[in-house]
Amino acid sequence: MGRRTLPRWPGMELFASAMDVPAPTPLPRVEISKLAGLVGERVRLTGWLYNKRGSKKLAFLEVRDGTGVVQCTVAQADVPDATWQAAAEVTQESALEVEGEVRAHPRRASEVELGVTSLRVTAPSVEYPISPKEHGTDFLMDHRHLWLRSRRQHAILGVRHSIVRAIRDFFDTRGFTLVDAPIFTPNACEGTSTLFETEYHGDTAYLTQSGQLYMEAAAAALGKVYCFGPTFRAEKSKTRRHLAEFWMVEPEVAFLDLDGDMQLAEDLLCAIVARVLDARRTELALLERDLAPLERVQGPFPRISYRQAIDVLREAGHDAKFGDDLGADEETLVSQRFDRPVIVHRYPSEAKAFYMKRDPTAPELALCMDVLAPEGYGEIIGGGQREDDLAALEARIDAHHLPRAAFDWYLDLRRYGSFPHAGFGLGVERTVAWLCGLPHVRETIPFPRMLNRLAP
Amino acid sequence: MGRRTLPRWPGMELFASAMDVPAPTPLPRVEISKLAGLVGERVRLTGWLYNKRGSKKLAFLEVRDGTGVVQCTVAQADVPDATWQAAAEVTQESALEVEGEVRAHPRRASEVELGVTSLRVTAPSVEYPISPKEHGTDFLMDHRHLWLRSRRQHAILGVRHSIVRAIRDFFDTRGFTLVDAPIFTPNACEGTSTLFETEYHGDTAYLTQSGQLYMEAAAAALGKVYCFGPTFRAEKSKTRRHLAEFWMVEPEVAFLDLDGDMQLAEDLLCAIVARVLDARRTELALLERDLAPLERVQGPFPRISYRQAIDVLREAGHDAKFGDDLGADEETLVSQRFDRPVIVHRYPSEAKAFYMKRDPTAPELALCMDVLAPEGYGEIIGGGQREDDLAALEARIDAHHLPRAAFDWYLDLRRYGSFPHAGFGLGVERTVAWLCGLPHVRETIPFPRMLNRLAP
Repeated sequence: MGRRTLPRWPGMELFASAMDVPAPTPLPRVEISKLAGLVGERVRLTGWLYNKRGSKKLAFLEVRDGTGVVQCTVAQADVPDATWQAAAEVTQESALEVEGEVRAHPRRASEVELGVTSLRVTAPSVEYPISPKEHGTDFLMDHRHLWLRSRRQHAILGVRHSIVRAIRDFFDTRGFTLVDAPIFTPNACEGTSTLFETEYHGDTAYLTQSGQLYMEAAAAALGKVYCFGPTFRAEKSKTRRHLAEFWMVEPEVAFLDLDGDMQLAEDLLCAIVARVLDARRTELALLERDLAPLERVQGPFPRISYRQAIDVLREAGHDAKFGDDLGADEETLVSQRFDRPVIVHRYPSEAKAFYMKRDPTAPELALCMDVLAPEGYGEIIGGGQREDDLAALEARIDAHHLPRAAFDWYLDLRRYGSFPHAGFGLGVERTVAWLCGLPHVRETIPFPRMLNRLAP
Repeated sequence: MGRRTLPRWPGMELFASAMDVPAPTPLPRVEISKLAGLVGERVRLTGWLYNKRGSKKLAFLEVRDGTGVVQCTVAQADVPDATWQAAAEVTQESALEVEGEVRAHPRRASEVELGVTSLRVTAPSVEYPISPKEHGTDFLMDHRHLWLRSRRQHAILGVRHSIVRAIRDFFDTRGFTLVDAPIFTPNACEGTSTLFETEYHGDTAYLTQSGQLYMEAAAAALGKVYCFGPTFRAEKSKTRRHLAEFWMVEPEVAFLDLDGDMQLAEDLLCAIVARVLDARRTELALLERDLAPLERVQGPFPRISYRQAIDVLREAGHDAKFGDDLGADEETLVSQRFDRPVIVHRYPSEAKAFYMKRDPTAPELALCMDVLAPEGYGEIIGGGQREDDLAALEARIDAHHLPRAAFDWYLDLRRYGSFPHAGFGLGVERTVAWLCGLPHVRETIPFPRMLNRLAP
């Protein structure tokens, strides 16, 4: 081990020993993802045994290190007996250190393998609970901390990462300012039945279900803003689309109307899908995702009114009428009429939140919109234009039996330079489920929290 | 208003009306940040009145729209009487729409102004509570939703945005996978005194103080990972450095030791500071931040042991001895010896968390480190190498009187292919305070939550 000497800082003369930093070991540790460019080189890998097969004279160890998986071939004739023995005995998920030469894979063009010269099990793994055989969902969820080691979970988390990155890139390159919304909120805006609450230094705080009201204040300050963080919902229902804790991005834009809001949502979805198709082909292939429906996600998306959606349902034989809620089944029926996401706008205002602006030409309708994903994935975006008239908003708060004092700060936004504005929320987990083609959201987040699931 | 026709999608023949989308109005709305390139053009602005001054025949309106502030000059001789009257009467923070021609600013080179031809107050603002006079902190915090409209707050939130972006870019370009840690956790790891708790479908859930344990599981799966989200601390203390809700980024890396961990922390801090110096010069100038200390933030940082830190304190006349905690005052004393961040490593293991690996050559020391920011800002990073020996970790859990069952999943990481690994946590708000030169963290987050502060 060599040592290199660091430059001096003022005050460092006291500490001669602190100025030496150990240099890397001679045979460099290389990440598996970097091996392709190193054919002919001797390298050292550290990782875990993912899988193993062999013959009388050859052992093929699939080794993973988080950046990839590589075949490490041990030839009995080329290694000491102890190494051959170690290769024979190493068990699934044991941690190991392998040295050898990078060379072309004997059968798979464009891949490399490692010709092993040295193998050391650094930490054993005895009776690893997850074997290649099928396990039940509960068992896998109980072992989520280990289940994450599978290629399938790597693929899903990789797609999730790219979706998050695409969302932030989209807003950051368009002049939006990130304004993190608070998690603790003082008021139960729309009833406490689906809110988690906590004692807060003598008060009661509720965990946020949406940063929207705060983003409206921020839009008055910064024009174009977004928040992106966890949100919470204490729903008792157990469905394939609900989590107690999920991530949501919420843009809000000053001087934007419903038309502009729909365009922003469309542009965002197109950017996300394009990014995932570009960056995560391998992962989508591993998940056996049909790419054709994703490749059709290009603007413009169809925009239909709620009334037209009711017509679609009736045409399909559904007994729907104006005023009905569109549930998961109805959303699927509507979205099946189109080959890409469809935007449904102007729902009846009656059933909608107090802050939604009414259509001036038809006050029974709210200037709101939902984006329904294709293939039965349903609503992934909900949003619209906000009520910007002080008197109308006060009346709505009273009609919803909400405590006006709790919204005094929110009403200030209408007292001091009120402005048209709009925004929406996009749920990350539903987007991951859709793009990966997963039937349930439980695999879309690293450690899901559901009705009966708070661990690990 | 013209209309443009959109292309057709399968299924759209039903909805002729949905295929027309209104085209933009003739005189385009332009963001203030885009005006510099439009000298000579007629444009329309929407925004709010930030400030106003005038003479008998000229009114100078400072208009802001979130992207910037521009002087809009109204000349009595050039506009109808009603417009001149509107300019005379418009009040602070009224929303307005202005049309006019972009032209060079009469006195400030490189700036533009708007020669107003039309002015319309779209929503008034009567007796806006925050005037240019000085207000007390409590008053401003009570009006945080409006206070955000000031240039000072824009500057701070801009720096915060760049810090968040720099952190994500740093990890994303180095092959880390984003793995969001859960907010709800089933166990009170180190006593419940500083934990917020909530009823969770019949169970008790605690709000996370750190995603570290989950990142250790994720590092075994993906090698290099990070989480980045809100964390919570129910401390009763009221200091200038503590929030009840704050954002933290926590990387965790498989096969990394303490030396590598210190290097990663140093590289991250250098990248953050370089980004802010590059992207936010204007904001730092507005905050009157001395740039010299920031420009010195370059590697390598001094690395001293806890023992050496005690020596520094004693030399400075402080009555410190081995085993003492380093509080804010001690951190300041130590960091004053250096001209850039200093890394203090190998604290006494006695007072440290159960998961910290002990130094094999000196078991009374933990393989941990803190990074202390200069200028009295104290600890902004804490981390180290994790205990990877199953028996040692079990003994530590027992010695700390922690329930072993609660950590069964965590112990699995040592049962199945245990591996050396290290990581750290960086607090966003303390970093914002340091880089902006703020004496208190309350302005570093859009809606701060503190001991006596849960609103707005």
